[in-house]
Amino acid sequence: MTDAAAAYEELKAQGLKLDLTRGKPSAEQLDLAAPLLDLPGAGNHKAADGTDTRNYGGGQGLPELREIFAPFLQVPAGQLIAGNNGSLELMHDTLVNALLNALPGAPTRWVDAGRVAFLAPVPGYDRHYGVCERLGIDLVTVPMTADGPDMDEVERLVADDPSIKGIWCVPKYSNPDGAVYSDETVRRLAAMPTAAPDFRIMWDNAYAVHHLTTDEIEVADVLALAAEAGNPDRPFVFGSTSKITLAGAGVAFFGASQANVDWWLKLASKRTIGPDKVNQLRHALFLEDGEGLRAHMAAHRELIAPKFAMVERLLAESFSDTPGVTWTHPKGGYFVNLVVPDGLASEVVRLAKEAGIALTPAGATHPYGKDPQDAIIRLAPTLPPLDEIENAMAGVVVCLKLALARR
Amino acid sequence: MTDAAAAYEELKAQGLKLDLTRGKPSAEQLDLAAPLLDLPGAGNHKAADGTDTRNYGGGQGLPELREIFAPFLQVPAGQLIAGNNGSLELMHDTLVNALLNALPGAPTRWVDAGRVAFLAPVPGYDRHYGVCERLGIDLVTVPMTADGPDMDEVERLVADDPSIKGIWCVPKYSNPDGAVYSDETVRRLAAMPTAAPDFRIMWDNAYAVHHLTTDEIEVADVLALAAEAGNPDRPFVFGSTSKITLAGAGVAFFGASQANVDWWLKLASKRTIGPDKVNQLRHALFLEDGEGLRAHMAAHRELIAPKFAMVERLLAESFSDTPGVTWTHPKGGYFVNLVVPDGLASEVVRLAKEAGIALTPAGATHPYGKDPQDAIIRLAPTLPPLDEIENAMAGVVVCLKLALARR
Repeated sequence: MTDAAAAYEELKAQGLKLDLTRGKPSAEQLDLAAPLLDLPGAGNHKAADGTDTRNYGGGQGLPELREIFAPFLQVPAGQLIAGNNGSLELMHDTLVNALLNALPGAPTRWVDAGRVAFLAPVPGYDRHYGVCERLGIDLVTVPMTADGPDMDEVERLVADDPSIKGIWCVPKYSNPDGAVYSDETVRRLAAMPTAAPDFRIMWDNAYAVHHLTTDEIEVADVLALAAEAGNPDRPFVFGSTSKITLAGAGVAFFGASQANVDWWLKLASKRTIGPDKVNQLRHALFLEDGEGLRAHMAAHRELIAPKFAMVERLLAESFSDTPGVTWTHPKGGYFVNLVVPDGLASEVVRLAKEAGIALTPAGATHPYGKDPQDAIIRLAPTLPPLDEIENAMAGVVVCLKLALARR
Repeated sequence: MTDAAAAYEELKAQGLKLDLTRGKPSAEQLDLAAPLLDLPGAGNHKAADGTDTRNYGGGQGLPELREIFAPFLQVPAGQLIAGNNGSLELMHDTLVNALLNALPGAPTRWVDAGRVAFLAPVPGYDRHYGVCERLGIDLVTVPMTADGPDMDEVERLVADDPSIKGIWCVPKYSNPDGAVYSDETVRRLAAMPTAAPDFRIMWDNAYAVHHLTTDEIEVADVLALAAEAGNPDRPFVFGSTSKITLAGAGVAFFGASQANVDWWLKLASKRTIGPDKVNQLRHALFLEDGEGLRAHMAAHRELIAPKFAMVERLLAESFSDTPGVTWTHPKGGYFVNLVVPDGLASEVVRLAKEAGIALTPAGATHPYGKDPQDAIIRLAPTLPPLDEIENAMAGVVVCLKLALARR
């Protein structure tokens, strides 16, 4: 038996039960928002403008909460909508709206447009793909670079094909590769000519304030650049507090041009008599202001940066000089992207599973779950405690070594 | 000047600013749920099964909350979904799902089905109509009776026309006429042959526990009757705590057959990583159980029954013997339906508005805002304090007298 095979047998004998699959905050991170569980407090149900948050109404969401998040999401507070507990819902519902009611600038509602396709930079976020697959929107992949999507390819595709109606973007600390869109990428996205007059950028700024270092990276202001370029209605901006306060009980945001916001609110008014404003008040009272938000995210960083450092250390110890094995060193976000030689990703995931270590399925970073190179493994190190990260990553190292040895 | 005209001039001179438009709970009713503003309380974030309610997941909603509401909504807890803060959202999204993904038993998704129409018993709830109008679903009116929709007419329409895919129902204390569906109506709805194999009953049990008297009226179990009749997938049941706890920050419910629930949850899993379970835990802790819910609704009744009695008294004092003027005497729900001679409703609403009394626009109880008889005025007496109800209703009496005198 080779050393690698022996090490793997030893790993399996440990009977581990560890999980690096999903980008979920840990219990300690959720504890940072513990005051939310007592807020707003008895008798404390009025918004700053006197609105009784307990009753119906207020479709755009609480102004004081929108004010706190507006600068971080780079959307004027008046063009920002605060909703319920998930930005995925807002993305989904925005596409539903575009399917069933013509967007500003659209020649027709999308269900009447024949084929509708979105560009999917890969590797990317499986839930973005899931929304499109569920809604009958085709996905066309484009490669990611360290500066964002390959813009030559993006520009080429959107210039000719009017059925390409949008692109998915996680502009900062991208899921899963941690890429930060360069200013030039954002400028080109905002300004590029598109065959579809109703082209939209799904700007999922999920990690806007989720820094892993003290270098608080900023991306260019896509709404402003699009307006300057004469495409004010192009960006749809999304964000949420799911990985700031409580993952399941946060507040999500949607921002866009005034025309888009008016379109959105008019349709939303048929669906709801308003979002949960009590929860929005809870959040405004807890975070207080931009400085409060920054301080809160610094506390998150203290909890999770050591976990990312552990992943980095264990991978570097074993694979610094291994041809074909690379990984990302993200400055924010929730993931480390491990790239292995072509054809090995699913084998590593399989070996890990047999040893009791759950990894995100290989291929999940690509539409329809198919990574043609079978080379990408998404590691999510926030949820487990540090010692479990260490054990799980030590196991991943063993599995990858075995897969490499067997090749 | 006639007496009626003089009284109206006096009314206008008072410079009132009163509002009987919407079925909103009053601040005193919302105060009944004050403990929710401190719940679940620091450290108290685990569900009965140990789930951390703060994190992602749990798409069907908290079991202990579903258990409390299951008997009142007449849906087994396992087939009940607890969502976010509005049943209107659940109704809207269920129809979106049916439009974009074929329902169990449907030959096609509804956007590919050509015309899709729903039956709208009139008078009915304007927001139901709004959902259909926004989604491109036609509305076909059928008359309401004291026992629910005119079932001869309903059976005739659904038997022949496969484009009629559903019917809106508020089975208990109906909006706005307070009607309670008879057992025979429910049985016929559940059993009637329909040309559409994917026909659905939108069973909006909005006032399931909202009794105005100690006679806690029960309606027949539509899910059970539909299953018995061989149409298990026909009913979609909706409910919410909006008029139980907090109007804007409650919990909504959707219940149906297992096949429908599976279909719904699968689609919802593409839209959300779960509802706000912390708010569901808050509700479970506050209401405790079915008895807690009953006691809470009795406290609501004490607050609002006198307001309904005031409306009744003022209308009875002036119009008991007036031909063509009738009104409902609801045993629950949120509305009194005032019927005036044909052609007078919008005139009364106009006169009231000029005197500073806002009434729901005449016609709002009908699709597209058009009541062909112009005879129905929906009065919503829950929101204002009792003295304002008295003043507003005294004003409505003056306006109706003037409209009758001028006829």
